[in-house]
Amino acid sequence: MIKVGIIGVGTVGSSVAKILEENEQIITARAGKKIVATKGVVKNLSKKRDLNIALSDNTDFILDDPEINIVVELMGGVDDAYNVVKKALKNNKAIVTANKALLAYHRYELQEIAGELPFEFEASVAGGIPIIEALRVGLSANHVLAIRGIMNGTCNYILTKMANEKCALETVLKEAQDLGYAEADPTFDIGGFDAAHKLLILSSIAYGIDTKPEDILIEGIENITQDDFYFAQEFGYKIKLLAIAKKVGNEIELRVHPTLIDENLMLSKVDGVMNGISIIGDRVGETMYYGAGAGGNATASAVVSDIIDIVRSGKSKPMLGFKKPMEGEGLKLASNENIVSKYYLRVSVADKAGVLAKIASIFGQNDISIEAMMQQPKTWYANLLISTHKCKECQIQNAIKEISTLEFVTAKPIMIRIEEF
Amino acid sequence: MIKVGIIGVGTVGSSVAKILEENEQIITARAGKKIVATKGVVKNLSKKRDLNIALSDNTDFILDDPEINIVVELMGGVDDAYNVVKKALKNNKAIVTANKALLAYHRYELQEIAGELPFEFEASVAGGIPIIEALRVGLSANHVLAIRGIMNGTCNYILTKMANEKCALETVLKEAQDLGYAEADPTFDIGGFDAAHKLLILSSIAYGIDTKPEDILIEGIENITQDDFYFAQEFGYKIKLLAIAKKVGNEIELRVHPTLIDENLMLSKVDGVMNGISIIGDRVGETMYYGAGAGGNATASAVVSDIIDIVRSGKSKPMLGFKKPMEGEGLKLASNENIVSKYYLRVSVADKAGVLAKIASIFGQNDISIEAMMQQPKTWYANLLISTHKCKECQIQNAIKEISTLEFVTAKPIMIRIEEF
Repeated sequence: MIKVGIIGVGTVGSSVAKILEENEQIITARAGKKIVATKGVVKNLSKKRDLNIALSDNTDFILDDPEINIVVELMGGVDDAYNVVKKALKNNKAIVTANKALLAYHRYELQEIAGELPFEFEASVAGGIPIIEALRVGLSANHVLAIRGIMNGTCNYILTKMANEKCALETVLKEAQDLGYAEADPTFDIGGFDAAHKLLILSSIAYGIDTKPEDILIEGIENITQDDFYFAQEFGYKIKLLAIAKKVGNEIELRVHPTLIDENLMLSKVDGVMNGISIIGDRVGETMYYGAGAGGNATASAVVSDIIDIVRSGKSKPMLGFKKPMEGEGLKLASNENIVSKYYLRVSVADKAGVLAKIASIFGQNDISIEAMMQQPKTWYANLLISTHKCKECQIQNAIKEISTLEFVTAKPIMIRIEEF
Repeated sequence: MIKVGIIGVGTVGSSVAKILEENEQIITARAGKKIVATKGVVKNLSKKRDLNIALSDNTDFILDDPEINIVVELMGGVDDAYNVVKKALKNNKAIVTANKALLAYHRYELQEIAGELPFEFEASVAGGIPIIEALRVGLSANHVLAIRGIMNGTCNYILTKMANEKCALETVLKEAQDLGYAEADPTFDIGGFDAAHKLLILSSIAYGIDTKPEDILIEGIENITQDDFYFAQEFGYKIKLLAIAKKVGNEIELRVHPTLIDENLMLSKVDGVMNGISIIGDRVGETMYYGAGAGGNATASAVVSDIIDIVRSGKSKPMLGFKKPMEGEGLKLASNENIVSKYYLRVSVADKAGVLAKIASIFGQNDISIEAMMQQPKTWYANLLISTHKCKECQIQNAIKEISTLEFVTAKPIMIRIEEF
């Protein structure tokens, strides 16, 4: 019998315990051994929980128990979780975690400490979608050319609602908070940080590249308005918060930002709280993965599948696909200013003569060619909605800087990148 | 160094050798060891091949070589392949195969013979999509409620073209043959048998159920015409050849047939030669997998990923998810006549008074309630296009039998099942 200890018995932790109990028969048949969650650690012992496991508020209750074989870390956060996982590994326990923040910061140290001990984290990216396994095993013959994913259900819910119901971000956000799809402080989701953590995990497996969230381009969806959806619908785009990893020569672009994508792409059909990830391999071409990216049961499905995999295969695969950063490829992080993309700009201007000529000349001076343009009349100003052909990030940033200083421009222009597949 | 022998060096086999050579650096970094294809077996030695491996037309060239660690079986067919794989396993070699027919008939015997030797077959279903791994590992915590997939690229190409270009099946089939998307004798694809082989492999992993192609319901797309697409488009459906495995109580429905599905489903967006598989787990909900289901490079991507997995994890997972048939669940194959579904019927009738009343009364007598109906005038006859609410397969079959005998019915009615998700 394999004994599992769960540190952090909230929504996901409770689901893990319940799946192990309720699907026991099939899990035993698949794993070859009985797997039982015997202990849990919680912050608040007085809260009532409907579970058949012994509880404590002290992590050593699990970490120091020699009978526990596998520690499931679901406490969240970075520093405390790091210490807990480190101690568990020192005590020779296999690890299963759903903690993306922990991995965004400490995945390489933890891989080093884990050594041959199994360390699995399928639940850390895209909840119930087995994307880690797909990238680490199923696509391992490939050079990964690009990963492009909708990895944050909160943002996708908000953007889908905004597109369908033509309402403001604040309205949908409030609704999402009421439904439990968004946190009281939504910055981590809305600002793109959650998706960035997940992107870093995937990019380690794809490229063996060791980066921190601070190193990469992260933009949230805060500034998206109905004006942008108006342009998108007019020109056949959807607006999605994409996490993108892309191999360009020997450099890897890593970035999270709202993105205009062709409305006919499979990814464009990924709506509501669902997640979807498209991966391009040099041999296999595009594969796409879709499913619930969050929620107790979906996330717990991934956690329990990791537990089963550890029990039946016994030995660990290289946790991050490669043993060390950069091994095998010698790739480095691309600098943001060299990113090449098409761009969309929303510029609010006073409705005066000569405005368009002045803005167009700034594009020209920065060697940026305009692809499409709409002028949208408003009450006391006008919106210029402009998309460009491909140029470098530094060119568009320079143009934005120059446009911002024009006296008839009433607010800093909003820029959204246009991603072509 | 790990040495690989490839039996059957055609399109896929050549791609396997090329990927191992051209992606050597990254494969070594991922596998932890250098992997080299040293030998190949081909039928026709005189055919020129641009590969750096020693060739023979005798399988013992590989099977009796003690230096070969992994045998890749790509010869196709059932009996010869079975003997080759059996001998390779007896000689203690790990197996990687893309041979769905072999597995459709002999997967349980081969699992028994393989024992602890790795036996991988990711490429046998849906080419480059890592669907075997997803089902065997990523979703293993779940009772699988349903698998519904577009698993035959030839049929999907034909149905997509028919839908978009409003042309006849024969026209598109001819085109597909010219493009190499369909075989000279297309029966195996068009008739649903290829998809059925794949379905049996997936259903073993999901349910531990041992069935042969002869045991299950298989219908092809031969009889689909533009009339059916007309009805489908009118009522918001797509027509796809689906392979379906579904858990209903303690029984498993296994069936392959053309299917009307809601045009807004993710699966409905899987067009052309692409494959897509939707899986519903009791905990994770729906996950969906999309990619190239055939082609040398996509299939070879899966073969090489299997090789890498064998080299780095060393030990085998239970080949079919469960060690023995039925283990863990005690499930049995559902009888076809108890399948509950909605149905669409196309009935060609002489354009006479009283026809509709007679047909409607047959539906009524069989306790089948009609959902939608269109009468489509033709030159010398009329088509009645009818969809029903849910009923049992035996009810609709009985109604079809009775309708067929009516004197004003000019041909056997065409029936397509309507699948609700």
